[in-house]
Amino acid sequence: MKVEIISIGDELLIGQIVNTNASWLGQFLNNYGLTTNKCITIGDNLLQIIDSFEEAEKDCDIVIITGGLGPTKDDLTKEALCKYFDTKLIFNEKVFEQVKTFLENRSGTMNELNSSQAMIPENSIPLTNIYGTAPGLWIEKHNKIFIALPGVPYEMKTLMENEVIPRLIKRFSLGEIFHKNILTIGIAEALLAEKLKEFENSLEPEIKLAYLPSPGIVKLRLSTYNSLNKELIENKVKQIFDIIPEYIVSTENENINEVIGKLLIKNQKTISTAESCTGGSISKMITAVPGSSEYYNGSIIAYSNKVKEEILRVPNEIISKYGAVSQQVVELMALNANKIFNTDYSLATSGIAGPTGGTKDKPIGTVWIAVAENDKVISKKYLFGDIRERNIEKASIYALNMLRLKILNFSII
Amino acid sequence: MKVEIISIGDELLIGQIVNTNASWLGQFLNNYGLTTNKCITIGDNLLQIIDSFEEAEKDCDIVIITGGLGPTKDDLTKEALCKYFDTKLIFNEKVFEQVKTFLENRSGTMNELNSSQAMIPENSIPLTNIYGTAPGLWIEKHNKIFIALPGVPYEMKTLMENEVIPRLIKRFSLGEIFHKNILTIGIAEALLAEKLKEFENSLEPEIKLAYLPSPGIVKLRLSTYNSLNKELIENKVKQIFDIIPEYIVSTENENINEVIGKLLIKNQKTISTAESCTGGSISKMITAVPGSSEYYNGSIIAYSNKVKEEILRVPNEIISKYGAVSQQVVELMALNANKIFNTDYSLATSGIAGPTGGTKDKPIGTVWIAVAENDKVISKKYLFGDIRERNIEKASIYALNMLRLKILNFSII
Repeated sequence: MKVEIISIGDELLIGQIVNTNASWLGQFLNNYGLTTNKCITIGDNLLQIIDSFEEAEKDCDIVIITGGLGPTKDDLTKEALCKYFDTKLIFNEKVFEQVKTFLENRSGTMNELNSSQAMIPENSIPLTNIYGTAPGLWIEKHNKIFIALPGVPYEMKTLMENEVIPRLIKRFSLGEIFHKNILTIGIAEALLAEKLKEFENSLEPEIKLAYLPSPGIVKLRLSTYNSLNKELIENKVKQIFDIIPEYIVSTENENINEVIGKLLIKNQKTISTAESCTGGSISKMITAVPGSSEYYNGSIIAYSNKVKEEILRVPNEIISKYGAVSQQVVELMALNANKIFNTDYSLATSGIAGPTGGTKDKPIGTVWIAVAENDKVISKKYLFGDIRERNIEKASIYALNMLRLKILNFSII
Repeated sequence: MKVEIISIGDELLIGQIVNTNASWLGQFLNNYGLTTNKCITIGDNLLQIIDSFEEAEKDCDIVIITGGLGPTKDDLTKEALCKYFDTKLIFNEKVFEQVKTFLENRSGTMNELNSSQAMIPENSIPLTNIYGTAPGLWIEKHNKIFIALPGVPYEMKTLMENEVIPRLIKRFSLGEIFHKNILTIGIAEALLAEKLKEFENSLEPEIKLAYLPSPGIVKLRLSTYNSLNKELIENKVKQIFDIIPEYIVSTENENINEVIGKLLIKNQKTISTAESCTGGSISKMITAVPGSSEYYNGSIIAYSNKVKEEILRVPNEIISKYGAVSQQVVELMALNANKIFNTDYSLATSGIAGPTGGTKDKPIGTVWIAVAENDKVISKKYLFGDIRERNIEKASIYALNMLRLKILNFSII
């Protein structure tokens, strides 16, 4: 079953907005084994739209059109469908009532523009849009299916999920792809691939393994087109777990800060941070999780040596002797944060984020991270890279991961 | 001059990566008055690629192809060009030397795959790629120009800037669009449009004004296709400045945290923060600027009342009487942060980020923000929205903007 995606809108052609609809659709359709053959983007131009319908019909079984369904004169999709299918717009009572109710719930009023949304091509099936006034449309010709959807991403996505895919599944008896994501932290992609080489070679052909790296993180994705393989996939996850237990942060689509939150709640423990080079980034990650006030007390961001001395109570002699970016200082920062905030765990960072400040002994990207549990502390030195933003991001992720390893009794990696 | 953009790659069709190249190209070409007529995305399929060349030649004067230029067997662009232009690959000495030098500088070695990069279609002009081994290609037929570029975004962009645009400017005597961005904070798009209505109506037709809103921010963009109008645009910026002086944060493409950094350095002042609901987000923004240690001492993130009492020294009675989210508490937080960190300015926040914790009097999205200068303090209550992430982001931006207004002697908005 071949699909063509047609995105309509001048704003796409001049790059005012990025066409994320097309990539979302490609991925979403791929989950059901539907292959996108081509995506085209064109402007708000009637002849060009009709031409594109003609071209698409030649190559594909299903044509998905996004954009151009609004009520203003720029919006030409319905007109193009009428011309192409040689039909006319007719009033649809059901759509009219839906639009009316939609507006009433939002204190909006029905005007001429809004009522025009109830005019749809004869022979088309309206698809209910719960987030907007423009209905989706389903219309067929010579066994080719044309589906027109609004360009607003969440309206389009909801229509695809609620209205379009159920119909396509029924029509073509589609299966669904089954995915399992495994979040790993602390291991580079190449090393991970090496460790999983044997496992990967033994994989059944109907199961695919993909590596999706981003700074500090590698996501593994196991997928299959056959829902009968769900159990097999779960077994594969267990196998990967046996190979790299310490690197797996989550198999449930959670980020490291959510995993940390759950662990702390489960163990009824609290946390604080003492951040130098990460400058509040760890705190921000922790507090991004709703309900984090249950386990997070607070932080001291110590961006100057004076703050490290006066508020975090790291003795001046220690800073003078070893430097602010040192094991001695970062461990005291973590230990004292636990005391100051009366927490069970504390994370501390001290490093050189860049772009300046590096030395031969401590180049840019050097970061000491400590995790304290009550009055015990462990620490590790990392060497990240040259880019300030990345160094801050990676140090924050590695710090939270260090706490995870500590709580789960793994050794620090 | 009409352009068609052809993006090649299976990974684009299955949505593994978003096609940002096409939108970047659309915007970049638009800067020179070149209109993108159509963008198409196709897979790594020889026949489909050749078909797309044929279609594009019918409609357009310039065809820009990205992707498929690498040395592996998936990469079909050069083969498709040879078939389409009825020519063959020939060895290019200059490209060979460039690839060799490129690899030597990166301790790479020339192997068979790399040398194949020096094979280019006869009659094509190679375009030097300083960031990779695949040269860009320029090839013409019946006065139509085909330009093939690598799919890696920074290679593609650099080739467009250094090699392609200079040639197109020369060939078609193109002008360049001139932009000026104006960053505003603290005023909603609709209100801004109202204030600028008269100004907008009086704009010369060759000058365009666009509104680009994002959470907490509206960017205005003045643009013209004629470089002779540069001075006129600068005058327009001054006119906007006269209408909304207090809302304009930067006309030099800087973010609020960079503007704050410059103001503090200029006035030789220092800053600290005392954050509750923003949870480290303001500190993170401040420390994202390289060199921020020059003016930023540190922060206390006080996520519990106890931390507000014990570390920020806000009396328990005040918190009990007014609640943690109150003018009284946030002002004391700011004043005490100045004392604790020995800074000139301090920013404090206390609010209900959500998704829970709202009351009738203090619904979700209520945030008190205070800015203290030495022992003087001002504060304001904001009501943002329902979404935790947005509330944190907006409160952080508004807090930094409050400091900007304070430093520049504007009243708080």
